Amino acid sequence: MHFTSERHLDDGVVERSFTLGEIPGILWTPASAPAPTPVILLGHPGGLDTMYPRLVARARQSAAQGFAAATVELPGSGDRPRSAVTDEARADLRRALAAGEPVTDDIVDRLVLPLVDQAVPEWQATLDALLALPGIGGPVGYSGGVISIGTRLAVAEPRVEAAVLFAGSFVPRAIYEEARHVTIPLHVLLQWDDKGNDRQAALDLFDAFGSREKTLNANMGGHTGVPQHAGDAAAAFFERHLKRGGVS
Amino acid sequence: MHFTSERHLDDGVVERSFTLGEIPGILWTPASAPAPTPVILLGHPGGLDTMYPRLVARARQSAAQGFAAATVELPGSGDRPRSAVTDEARADLRRALAAGEPVTDDIVDRLVLPLVDQAVPEWQATLDALLALPGIGGPVGYSGGVISIGTRLAVAEPRVEAAVLFAGSFVPRAIYEEARHVTIPLHVLLQWDDKGNDRQAALDLFDAFGSREKTLNANMGGHTGVPQHAGDAAAAFFERHLKRGGVS
Repeated sequence: MHFTSERHLDDGVVERSFTLGEIPGILWTPASAPAPTPVILLGHPGGLDTMYPRLVARARQSAAQGFAAATVELPGSGDRPRSAVTDEARADLRRALAAGEPVTDDIVDRLVLPLVDQAVPEWQATLDALLALPGIGGPVGYSGGVISIGTRLAVAEPRVEAAVLFAGSFVPRAIYEEARHVTIPLHVLLQWDDKGNDRQAALDLFDAFGSREKTLNANMGGHTGVPQHAGDAAAAFFERHLKRGGVS
Repeated sequence: MHFTSERHLDDGVVERSFTLGEIPGILWTPASAPAPTPVILLGHPGGLDTMYPRLVARARQSAAQGFAAATVELPGSGDRPRSAVTDEARADLRRALAAGEPVTDDIVDRLVLPLVDQAVPEWQATLDALLALPGIGGPVGYSGGVISIGTRLAVAEPRVEAAVLFAGSFVPRAIYEEARHVTIPLHVLLQWDDKGNDRQAALDLFDAFGSREKTLNANMGGHTGVPQHAGDAAAAFFERHLKRGGVS
């Protein structure tokens, strides 16, 4: 992990850009925090520059709770090399949507599974590097989309102790099977009236998660209109699960 | 409203039993509260004596927030005269369930609609009496089951400004139509793994509510296993909507 820049936000949060090999990322650390500081991995749909305003807002909320937060660019997004397979799948998806045809399992698999296959080990490598930093070392959370990445990571990475997942469309059938093996506490956010989202698929995935503690928090407001109180509830979830050594 | 007994709970909450005509009820008021004090109507499935431990726990939580809380016995429950129509519908329901037959709309209508028709004006009369008491007069909330009663009340009674509804089975078709006319903020609790509950019916009803602000909070734990954090989220909902004159 190689830090490339550092700046201090007005609330005392330190924001550091880094690269991990070829992967760009950002780490936010609170002005004051317990040591070791728990860290939340901030998931997103790809495109750090576009997502930055929403990511920094989520990082500030985490910092206010005494948590560090970190994110990395997704494979094929931002300045990272594009994937021919994914580009072709995305073209097929757009063609199906434009023609009003069903989005087949084949398209979803080609669009999402290679992304998950590549992104999950990258998140794990990021976690290795983060936990090697001085001061970082508490329980780890994952927060955000892509929900298929969050699901795989929750199964594959035992250091992730709790996850806030954003329900979104296009979940491969294989991920529903993996969801049954998730056992960590989950807090799933669903925007009920999100036109671009397949609500039934989100409900099916929530049902599939094997976790004994799982909460579905569904709200109005459209894709990006998660209400403040839902953000507060997600923050309370991490407060319960990432403080006191992760004991809920 | 005629008070029949009064006792002081250890947290300073004053519990007063009353009768309103033939209807028994209980009023809990906080040790200290702003005047006028907002009041939450505590819904339940009927049977004040059986429900008392859970009702008093909810009333204590409301009191800790500075809210009064009140409940009345449902028509046909506890010591109130039974209804031949409802008893017959309940017998038909048990017969259908025992035989593994579908519960028809006819049975649900006969079981629930007369109860709603009678209970809603009784809640309104209770509210008239409560708001005539010295000190009570803030915004009004409704909390609990029967969800069909809560739905009708939310449409019929403009003094109810926000409602926490417990999703439960057996909602008449007519109530789904009424749900479209609900406009107040709603917080709907659903126990995802409640075997006695029709989950799809609960999701359909949540979808039908016309409210611009509505939250579905679904959790594991079975029928009576609402987790503490879900109770806290419901309390936070009333905090937002029943304080500061009900402005959210």
